[in-house]
Amino acid sequence: MSKKAIILLSGGLDSATTLAIAKKDNYDCYALSVNYHQRHNYELTAAKKIAKNFSVKDLKEVEIDLSWLNNSALTNNSLSIPENLSTGIPITYVPARNTIMMSLAMAWAESIDCTDIFIGVNAVDYSGYPDCREEYIRSFQKMANLATKKAVEGELLKIHTPLIKLSKKEIILKGIELGVDYSFTISCYQVSPDGLACGKCDSCRLRKAGFENAGLPDPTKYL
Amino acid sequence: MSKKAIILLSGGLDSATTLAIAKKDNYDCYALSVNYHQRHNYELTAAKKIAKNFSVKDLKEVEIDLSWLNNSALTNNSLSIPENLSTGIPITYVPARNTIMMSLAMAWAESIDCTDIFIGVNAVDYSGYPDCREEYIRSFQKMANLATKKAVEGELLKIHTPLIKLSKKEIILKGIELGVDYSFTISCYQVSPDGLACGKCDSCRLRKAGFENAGLPDPTKYL
Repeated sequence: MSKKAIILLSGGLDSATTLAIAKKDNYDCYALSVNYHQRHNYELTAAKKIAKNFSVKDLKEVEIDLSWLNNSALTNNSLSIPENLSTGIPITYVPARNTIMMSLAMAWAESIDCTDIFIGVNAVDYSGYPDCREEYIRSFQKMANLATKKAVEGELLKIHTPLIKLSKKEIILKGIELGVDYSFTISCYQVSPDGLACGKCDSCRLRKAGFENAGLPDPTKYL
Repeated sequence: MSKKAIILLSGGLDSATTLAIAKKDNYDCYALSVNYHQRHNYELTAAKKIAKNFSVKDLKEVEIDLSWLNNSALTNNSLSIPENLSTGIPITYVPARNTIMMSLAMAWAESIDCTDIFIGVNAVDYSGYPDCREEYIRSFQKMANLATKKAVEGELLKIHTPLIKLSKKEIILKGIELGVDYSFTISCYQVSPDGLACGKCDSCRLRKAGFENAGLPDPTKYL
């Protein structure tokens, strides 16, 4: 019998590749998307396409309105998405986002007898978000294994981060090898309602450069 | 200027006492309640009364439907609330509940420049939930301080657990001293829609015994 895994599926390039890796590793895949009233909510449509393409056992979309987080450009539409390179942690950082999402994954995992969670965090070609770093993920895992009934009973949770040390180029090459159709994915922070990417934001730039470095055509539809 | 604090306010006896302690410690209090579609959702009404009574700066009720957690009697109404003492972690345990709530508190804290979170967990007269233990809280704090932009900038989050080592009797005596009106609070897991407690569930029994041991009249309205 296959083991179950929960995969955090945003609808972006990284999470799609992560799902493909979990599938290749023979897990029964349960995808979790979070509708946090993000500016780029087209990504939820993308997540549905990807989940269908990989025949996940279940796709759960959990809604939690975080539009009151007024200090992030992804939850506060009156802040602009930066279109130039800058230093430091950008304004697109969403406080506690990965912690909220992983805690939901933790809850779902425990309720379906699953001890494996996959998240596509990456600390090479990334925006510098602190909750994408390996030390954060390891610390979350430790905390989770003090929090749950399953852990008390000896069934420990494992957080898998297969992309953590890969460059965007390597992620794309891995995904292509595993049959990811990247035209289904969207990375843009200010994607249009019909799914067109801006080509200018941090996330678009990282993605574009990834395809260029991989020597592959970029299937993204730009404005 | 006072410092800000976020207080997780369920509407129960412990969280009301925790709010009173934060207030006494001169914090500007921001209360956070979570509507997770809990069976005993009357507690959200109680939380509003308590928040008003203590003149909090803000009360935020965040909604997140966890009714798909079908293995807990607090989120799955078809499971019965136990009315007899049992051993082990009871079926009223909700997977990852405190982690989800604290991650929301973490997000709110970062967005309002607050570095103090209060939670009324207690590991003496409690139901044995693993996410009420001190080691869990300490681990959460460590994780949070690897997750946020504020922490990277040197502003570390502190999780306060003023009740962790108190008995229910001591919690009640402390609350009375600080002016908590316990008739506003509700602890029952199967409280009626008009706020009457069953007197039989784990939470009712712990509360009842607390008032008895404190030698104080129990203001709870029972069925």
